[in-house]
Amino acid sequence: MKAAVFVEPGRIALEERPIPDIGPLDALVRVTTTTICGTDIHILKGEYPVRKGLVVGHEPVGVIEKLGSAVEGYREGQRVIAGAITPSGHSYASLDGCHAQCGAGTRHGFKPLGGWRFGNTIDGCQAEYVRVPDAMVNLAPVPDGLSDEQVLMCPDIMSTGFAGAESGRVRLGDTVAVFAQGPIGLCATAGARLRGATTIIGVESVPGRMAMARRLGADHVVDFRQVDPVEEILRLTEGRGVDVAIEALGTQQTFEACLRVLRPGGVLSSLGVYSTDLKLPLGPFAAGLGDHTIVTTLCPGGKERMRRLMNVVAAGRIDLGPLVTHRFKLDEIEAAYDLFGHQRDGVLKVAITP
Amino acid sequence: MKAAVFVEPGRIALEERPIPDIGPLDALVRVTTTTICGTDIHILKGEYPVRKGLVVGHEPVGVIEKLGSAVEGYREGQRVIAGAITPSGHSYASLDGCHAQCGAGTRHGFKPLGGWRFGNTIDGCQAEYVRVPDAMVNLAPVPDGLSDEQVLMCPDIMSTGFAGAESGRVRLGDTVAVFAQGPIGLCATAGARLRGATTIIGVESVPGRMAMARRLGADHVVDFRQVDPVEEILRLTEGRGVDVAIEALGTQQTFEACLRVLRPGGVLSSLGVYSTDLKLPLGPFAAGLGDHTIVTTLCPGGKERMRRLMNVVAAGRIDLGPLVTHRFKLDEIEAAYDLFGHQRDGVLKVAITP
Amino acid sequence: MKAAVFVEPGRIALEERPIPDIGPLDALVRVTTTTICGTDIHILKGEYPVRKGLVVGHEPVGVIEKLGSAVEGYREGQRVIAGAITPSGHSYASLDGCHAQCGAGTRHGFKPLGGWRFGNTIDGCQAEYVRVPDAMVNLAPVPDGLSDEQVLMCPDIMSTGFAGAESGRVRLGDTVAVFAQGPIGLCATAGARLRGATTIIGVESVPGRMAMARRLGADHVVDFRQVDPVEEILRLTEGRGVDVAIEALGTQQTFEACLRVLRPGGVLSSLGVYSTDLKLPLGPFAAGLGDHTIVTTLCPGGKERMRRLMNVVAAGRIDLGPLVTHRFKLDEIEAAYDLFGHQRDGVLKVAITP
Amino acid sequence: MKAAVFVEPGRIALEERPIPDIGPLDALVRVTTTTICGTDIHILKGEYPVRKGLVVGHEPVGVIEKLGSAVEGYREGQRVIAGAITPSGHSYASLDGCHAQCGAGTRHGFKPLGGWRFGNTIDGCQAEYVRVPDAMVNLAPVPDGLSDEQVLMCPDIMSTGFAGAESGRVRLGDTVAVFAQGPIGLCATAGARLRGATTIIGVESVPGRMAMARRLGADHVVDFRQVDPVEEILRLTEGRGVDVAIEALGTQQTFEACLRVLRPGGVLSSLGVYSTDLKLPLGPFAAGLGDHTIVTTLCPGGKERMRRLMNVVAAGRIDLGPLVTHRFKLDEIEAAYDLFGHQRDGVLKVAITP
Repeated sequence: MKAAVFVEPGRIALEERPIPDIGPLDALVRVTTTTICGTDIHILKGEYPVRKGLVVGHEPVGVIEKLGSAVEGYREGQRVIAGAITPSGHSYASLDGCHAQCGAGTRHGFKPLGGWRFGNTIDGCQAEYVRVPDAMVNLAPVPDGLSDEQVLMCPDIMSTGFAGAESGRVRLGDTVAVFAQGPIGLCATAGARLRGATTIIGVESVPGRMAMARRLGADHVVDFRQVDPVEEILRLTEGRGVDVAIEALGTQQTFEACLRVLRPGGVLSSLGVYSTDLKLPLGPFAAGLGDHTIVTTLCPGGKERMRRLMNVVAAGRIDLGPLVTHRFKLDEIEAAYDLFGHQRDGVLKVAITP
Repeated sequence: MKAAVFVEPGRIALEERPIPDIGPLDALVRVTTTTICGTDIHILKGEYPVRKGLVVGHEPVGVIEKLGSAVEGYREGQRVIAGAITPSGHSYASLDGCHAQCGAGTRHGFKPLGGWRFGNTIDGCQAEYVRVPDAMVNLAPVPDGLSDEQVLMCPDIMSTGFAGAESGRVRLGDTVAVFAQGPIGLCATAGARLRGATTIIGVESVPGRMAMARRLGADHVVDFRQVDPVEEILRLTEGRGVDVAIEALGTQQTFEACLRVLRPGGVLSSLGVYSTDLKLPLGPFAAGLGDHTIVTTLCPGGKERMRRLMNVVAAGRIDLGPLVTHRFKLDEIEAAYDLFGHQRDGVLKVAITP
Repeated sequence: MKAAVFVEPGRIALEERPIPDIGPLDALVRVTTTTICGTDIHILKGEYPVRKGLVVGHEPVGVIEKLGSAVEGYREGQRVIAGAITPSGHSYASLDGCHAQCGAGTRHGFKPLGGWRFGNTIDGCQAEYVRVPDAMVNLAPVPDGLSDEQVLMCPDIMSTGFAGAESGRVRLGDTVAVFAQGPIGLCATAGARLRGATTIIGVESVPGRMAMARRLGADHVVDFRQVDPVEEILRLTEGRGVDVAIEALGTQQTFEACLRVLRPGGVLSSLGVYSTDLKLPLGPFAAGLGDHTIVTTLCPGGKERMRRLMNVVAAGRIDLGPLVTHRFKLDEIEAAYDLFGHQRDGVLKVAITP
Repeated sequence: MKAAVFVEPGRIALEERPIPDIGPLDALVRVTTTTICGTDIHILKGEYPVRKGLVVGHEPVGVIEKLGSAVEGYREGQRVIAGAITPSGHSYASLDGCHAQCGAGTRHGFKPLGGWRFGNTIDGCQAEYVRVPDAMVNLAPVPDGLSDEQVLMCPDIMSTGFAGAESGRVRLGDTVAVFAQGPIGLCATAGARLRGATTIIGVESVPGRMAMARRLGADHVVDFRQVDPVEEILRLTEGRGVDVAIEALGTQQTFEACLRVLRPGGVLSSLGVYSTDLKLPLGPFAAGLGDHTIVTTLCPGGKERMRRLMNVVAAGRIDLGPLVTHRFKLDEIEAAYDLFGHQRDGVLKVAITP
């Protein structure tokens, strides 16, 4: 089969690979649509290290080709998705409800990110076929009537973005700021809206993303190239600051800005992948006396999470279709990486079809 | 009356002051016992700025001398305490359950610490009398049979320390580390024990404090002068790290150590008052992907909180009597500051009696 | 002034009364708009006992006429609302976050409903003027641009209905059933929608209410006169039942139906005012082994709650204007009671203007 | 092998059975110690129906004899326990954190109790060997140094009893009543103590159980044969009632008494297995306006839960050894049932050793 493989920093290439073997708990899924994530770009650039030769990609939509001998409750030919995070369901962390930090093999798993396996510690899904581990935990049947592209955001972007609002404990009537309106930030904006926030302020400067933010639920969009976003958010909130600030970029600047607009007792919900140490400035952190909460969230996974997210789509509560701005064949994935990695041509997300 | 007054950085002196007038919602309390807090030392040193001439102190035990015209439900002569934090009960923050960030006058109060008034924004209780604002919210009757010293830790030390365990959401069977075993850290240790943590690891190096930590509930006490506390905690937990790490000192070193011993998905509960920017190191912060929570807590106040804490004492669940290592008359308060500020003679807390 | 007074069971009449005196913590509010609640009908019928001569009504919109001597932070002439529930802000229950059960005078208040004072234990607001107790806790300024009718539902109907979804802990992607689509049920439907439920099933039989349910967020409306609602809900959910069932009527039949459609581990959120003992049938209650939660909620009050609800209205997230189906002058209130009490003419809510 | 088998209502008998076969996800455990539960008595009496021929018992301590082909992370010969409830880890309910209602095969599982399999829907552990399903989810290694009897209460009694306090959300300083001090109630008492309740009131009449209640944490024990327990609890709490009332018997009388002593806003945490419809009396239920929560809990299971409970034992926080009042060989299990079922000779729990 064809698969996008991490060759070396700076190079992900399409290669020929054998179709994966599966164990008793696994499933083999024929991928019908997948996409490229910002994390894949980190991998491409060598900023997030994975082993050479790994098949990348962690957002699969497909059809069950084969089921492991111990797998029950599914049938071959069934349309499914799996989350970017594939918990084992049997780790101590998973049984404690923390599926993304599922450190298989240890008792509690001190090593973080244990639940992220596709395109990280095992072969991923930018390929014709993918082996899904712990299939009964991770395979989520796609409801009739939903297209591949309609559920393509569920495995990662939507799950992560919504989690920003959920971990932030957004309540009815809250004021929420979302820093950066890339795909994750847009989904955080939509998630805050869905949970009942009433003043949602997006921060962005790319016109297409600013427009999409408004479409997905932002009441205000602040262009950080035109105004200082901290000042503007304090102005919009009459000096009170926000109840929840969501970081969706992964930089010191946005992280710190979140803290600066956060009211005492508020929650900073961080989704970004950082690449440097972070600084908590003394004043905005209120010297540790502001009753602040800072919470980070790795994408929630597992079939129950996927079921809920597909419910949101099926109910028509959100239309993420417009996030798919470009479409490529798997054969063209190197061009897709080039476009997506350089954020050219107003790209938000690409759909890749093997 | 006599009162300890902040004169200038480096100098808190006993001065003569008029007995406070009270408004309709206030009470005048004759102080029978009070104490000095680490925060008062920050004030003394000029590290935490207050206005010159302010009466300091925020931990009152006393007797109601006079009630404001609109105050109901109390009687003169009643023994009471008030929390270090005196919420208004009517601010937006207070009505939302965040009493310590009670910013009276604004809608939500962006300025933090609004609930801390005694010895910060209004005259405090290291004096013969203190005016208690919003008396119906803040005066908590002392149950019969409890001495002044038995309830002396409730207004601040016990409320803050316990909150470290509560904000950390300590659960039955948790492993908890508490960095620093000063009065606050000791109460955090006791609070973790009371909430059902089963492996409690205190970090300290002063022998008297190490012994007290064991007495109040620590299963292990790590002497950071003998071993690296991060390594030792990882060893004690067989590499798994802790579910909750409580910071009770206020330094980069202890804050960072908390993060380094925290399991993915765990909670860093911070109580310390910091005096510098803080750094979140990329690795232990898992690049923002570790499902970590960092929560800071200012001392919870109000009479309901005080009632609960006095319940804990009255039920014999904890004996904080031994924390009072030294006793002074109010006349001798300058000497008390000298002893406490320099942590001489094994001092933990002092009792000051006007 | 004119006021609607409970004379005896079966009779509420307009009488002449003196304008209320106010104490230091009170405010006098000139009522500009108010409404009649289902609870008032219980009072009228004698089903919920209040003292004879009491001015009834608990949903005030008005203008501050006079402020008590100890009240700060408001000005005369300001447009305000107050919640149906007027917590003291200083009771133990209120300080513990349970404002509606605010039992002034006792330590924790075993007597329930202590926070409901207007038209229950003190004179209410179906009058030209009303005394608002604990004004700083309860007066919520109306944002510019919102009309009386736009905020008229906030004091009770919207606060109670939304609380049905909040106490039910509705999550993104949940399936929710709401039994009865009167004003409270309609607001529960809207609240479930605002919190991100994706399958919302209303149960009702009055065509106008069924239509309004769809408009406010129901995905399905089941006519219990046409089909068995339990069977229909199980059919709609493919046998899985609902995550949250909201009772908004106050009868054994609807309460029990909620339990019968509730999945194991789900929440029955009860809003109704019952007038008989209730039965928990063994099977649907799973013999006590179903990990069910049953939670009842009295209308949350206080100015912070009102602020949030008015935010929801101001942000355009909900339009409850259509709930006001009829308008009366205060002089005509007896006719209004007659119409509303008999649910004639498709009435949902009436607006009363003194 | 020998096994205790449900023959017909009124008769559980020791029979000869083949050693169970295991599938790829299972483990075969050689039982070294087990016990009899109150639920087994319900089964014996025919009150809780199971199929004839089923091996009963759901509290296994043992040694791994054989591992299924897909099971990793364990070794034969390892000492383990498994919870009474054995979740699959891959059901929608289990992935949602509701392990006990794990309805394998359906999407959410409307049928309750799906996680209870041992001695209910599959053969149980009152036998020489037991097949443990989903072994990686359920096998919890016993820490070195703990005896069989020290961990014998973990699978059910301790997990259920503690859950009574956890589901009741017991907080530091709470007042808690526990109705009935059988094994489950005693563990609820201990759990309330471990979570920091400061006034714990047990209700019981058997002198040995009353004494044990005091030993495990009750501050007061009310003999319901001597006084009316509702009146006595109201007297002990000075009329305020309790924050949390735990039902640990399964009768209308105790359930209703819980409600009668519960303060507005409090939690009724129900553990009992009921055998009749229940009545919620209008007054104590405050006509549905008391902000009450009623929550039922089936025993939490899974290896993470077992790990935590064994931590509690290993840390010496609780000594449930004295609950084992009688010891029998598996050969004598019919006599054990006779003793335990009739609560003769002061029996609390029996240890059965094959």
